[in-house]
Amino acid sequence: MPLSSRHLLGLEGMPKQDIQLILDTATTFREVLERPVKKVPTLQGQTIVNLFLEDSTRTRVSFELAERRLSADVVNFSASASSIKKGETLKDTVRNLEAMKIDMVVIRHAAQGSPHFLTKIMNAHIINAGDGSHEHPTQALLDMYSIREKFGTIEGLHVCIVGDISHSRVALSNIYGLTTMGATVSVCGPKTLIPKDIEKLGVNVFYNINSAIREADVLNVLRIQLERQDRVFFPSLREYREYFAVTKERLKCARKEITIMHPGPINRGVELSADVADSDASIILQQVLNGVAVRMAVLYLLGTGK
Amino acid sequence: MPLSSRHLLGLEGMPKQDIQLILDTATTFREVLERPVKKVPTLQGQTIVNLFLEDSTRTRVSFELAERRLSADVVNFSASASSIKKGETLKDTVRNLEAMKIDMVVIRHAAQGSPHFLTKIMNAHIINAGDGSHEHPTQALLDMYSIREKFGTIEGLHVCIVGDISHSRVALSNIYGLTTMGATVSVCGPKTLIPKDIEKLGVNVFYNINSAIREADVLNVLRIQLERQDRVFFPSLREYREYFAVTKERLKCARKEITIMHPGPINRGVELSADVADSDASIILQQVLNGVAVRMAVLYLLGTGK
Amino acid sequence: MPLSSRHLLGLEGMPKQDIQLILDTATTFREVLERPVKKVPTLQGQTIVNLFLEDSTRTRVSFELAERRLSADVVNFSASASSIKKGETLKDTVRNLEAMKIDMVVIRHAAQGSPHFLTKIMNAHIINAGDGSHEHPTQALLDMYSIREKFGTIEGLHVCIVGDISHSRVALSNIYGLTTMGATVSVCGPKTLIPKDIEKLGVNVFYNINSAIREADVLNVLRIQLERQDRVFFPSLREYREYFAVTKERLKCARKEITIMHPGPINRGVELSADVADSDASIILQQVLNGVAVRMAVLYLLGTGK
Repeated sequence: MPLSSRHLLGLEGMPKQDIQLILDTATTFREVLERPVKKVPTLQGQTIVNLFLEDSTRTRVSFELAERRLSADVVNFSASASSIKKGETLKDTVRNLEAMKIDMVVIRHAAQGSPHFLTKIMNAHIINAGDGSHEHPTQALLDMYSIREKFGTIEGLHVCIVGDISHSRVALSNIYGLTTMGATVSVCGPKTLIPKDIEKLGVNVFYNINSAIREADVLNVLRIQLERQDRVFFPSLREYREYFAVTKERLKCARKEITIMHPGPINRGVELSADVADSDASIILQQVLNGVAVRMAVLYLLGTGK
Repeated sequence: MPLSSRHLLGLEGMPKQDIQLILDTATTFREVLERPVKKVPTLQGQTIVNLFLEDSTRTRVSFELAERRLSADVVNFSASASSIKKGETLKDTVRNLEAMKIDMVVIRHAAQGSPHFLTKIMNAHIINAGDGSHEHPTQALLDMYSIREKFGTIEGLHVCIVGDISHSRVALSNIYGLTTMGATVSVCGPKTLIPKDIEKLGVNVFYNINSAIREADVLNVLRIQLERQDRVFFPSLREYREYFAVTKERLKCARKEITIMHPGPINRGVELSADVADSDASIILQQVLNGVAVRMAVLYLLGTGK
Repeated sequence: MPLSSRHLLGLEGMPKQDIQLILDTATTFREVLERPVKKVPTLQGQTIVNLFLEDSTRTRVSFELAERRLSADVVNFSASASSIKKGETLKDTVRNLEAMKIDMVVIRHAAQGSPHFLTKIMNAHIINAGDGSHEHPTQALLDMYSIREKFGTIEGLHVCIVGDISHSRVALSNIYGLTTMGATVSVCGPKTLIPKDIEKLGVNVFYNINSAIREADVLNVLRIQLERQDRVFFPSLREYREYFAVTKERLKCARKEITIMHPGPINRGVELSADVADSDASIILQQVLNGVAVRMAVLYLLGTGK
């Protein structure tokens, strides 16, 4: 059974069976990752371009490992690539890449909708690795995989996403995916960082971190993007930390055992205290491992699915 | 039958049968590129260094894909490499690379003659990927391949190269190759951008784009290198466009169907209008595809030819 | 027989039989490097991360070639990687990499002790590719391999290291390794560039280059790191050259045939004259070749040794 789409642009509207297929396929690749030879020949002779027009280390390395472990040929194309600096349009850049007979493009771009745009102008499979503050579907898929791995299921769990919801593609993709899979989703953060009509997406809002902790099974703590604080949404980091940091102390509010997630890189001591990040409640490093498996699953399903 | 040289430095003086051998071999690799598994094991265990000491995206990616699809091991070495920044000479850099047992060097360098220089100091096969405003032989070979693919032959056709002829290695390599293959070659551009004694190379000169369009079977439109306009050769881009841009309107002067080529990246609306670039007359994207096949052919012929 | 350590952090305290095992294994790989297909499948499916947080070309390329020729999957991670720029700690960076199931990390870092630190927080095999002015063990191993190749043995030879001893990890690793292998080691340079109690490491000190030349079998001439001359240890390059440059003229002092080594990149005409660098006495390019073989040996022994 193939996926219902030739691309992975986002989790908005993605059918439940597609998500399930990806998560189930990822289980197979998780096993591959435990072997001494962590490699299968599945995508041999296929060419994948990593078009990371916005800086990234973690996601780029995760995709690159997934691609190599499927034996694909990999070409990296970064923001500093000269053709883009020379003023070539994105359209010309990708149509040129396509002319060279590539099979898939993994794109990260500051402009939301750019992966969708690529599907209009090329035949390669497109995978969204983050477009502006829109979606980051593989991150949400690995988050869901990690939750399912921990709890055996996603349905019926309460997942609270904490932080800058307004500017987070991780939050949005998680909201779409988790609600599709039957979880209860809430968000928590300062009013200035939560979109006004977020409830329309079927999520509850907490403005108080302690209330969120009291209710949730899982806290998915977002990174405060220090490097994007050109516009100011809260008075200072000290204030943010005082009101929203997830700390050992605060977790005492929890009525049940709580699971801590974070997409990384962590600002230790800002949105998450170091002891919580490194505690048994944290599945942050499992998320990283699962990220490779989930990306292998997506690449495999798209690359072999027609 | 091998090539008559161990290197590909330029098309000046290259025998017709060598050019024909490369184009014929490229036909085989064009077929490989249409397969689901676009890869052959021909250069397995050979190491190719891409020594791009001048920025490039398109040519570097094209070579890299060609190399990987021949199963070679690839090492990229860019201008920002620290040993060069530390003041090491080019000679020491390449002799060090050679000591590591590499088989081929693909070099792009701002200094004309640098590929030739490499042949004097190392045993690896040297491929010129552009040296200053001198030669860019693989570009001309892919241009010729694309013309032959379109017309079935090169001989007897009239190819006009339009733009900054003085500073273009693409122009010079095309002139050498096309005249060897029996084409009629002309150039067209502002007087300030055409070398004074260009006729000695056996080409006609047009200073009027409409006259060129009336005569030619093929227009190979060069990129105006906006980023190199530190010295001024024409009053303004507006002037250049007014007198030399290839537009739908202007193409009405043609007396026969005309074919449009461009080495890319295109400045849409400057040297070439967008509608012409995307029209049926344009074979620009075929050039890009053929570039991979032609480079595979060159690497294969040099890498297996002794 | 495996190595006695799971890591290669430095040559301080490394048992003689470990050094011998690496050098003997490297001999096998030197033969592989002479074949047309310079590749073995030994590390297929293993992932090696090159974590070069300090700029390097030569050592990075040498390791990368060694890794690819062992058929490992290679991920490059440079100082400009965005997660590090985003302020992620080294600890989080490497624990994330490890979570992605990597087998070995080759690390170059400006902070001495950082490779040792990695061994405390991850299970991957760690290879030190240079940590501050501490150790650079693969450089010293390739130096020893080159000496053994030239002389048939290391024991009993007199090796003099010339230059900035205080800031050189190459010097320190060579001192540890060579004394373990039974060589007589001396150092030569301006007083300001020689650590005060260097004799405690079992080496003699020459402040006069002619005396050193008279006694030594081998001169290992270090690079004067022009780019680090923010603090001044000698009046000027002219002075350094006048008193310490190794030149044809000076080598006439030698009482026996002398062998010249240099870790590169050379400042021709500063620490070493061009004619000496290119003379028959120089084994500088053999060092480069042996570097690939020695690194293959280290990667092989660690990667297959459990």
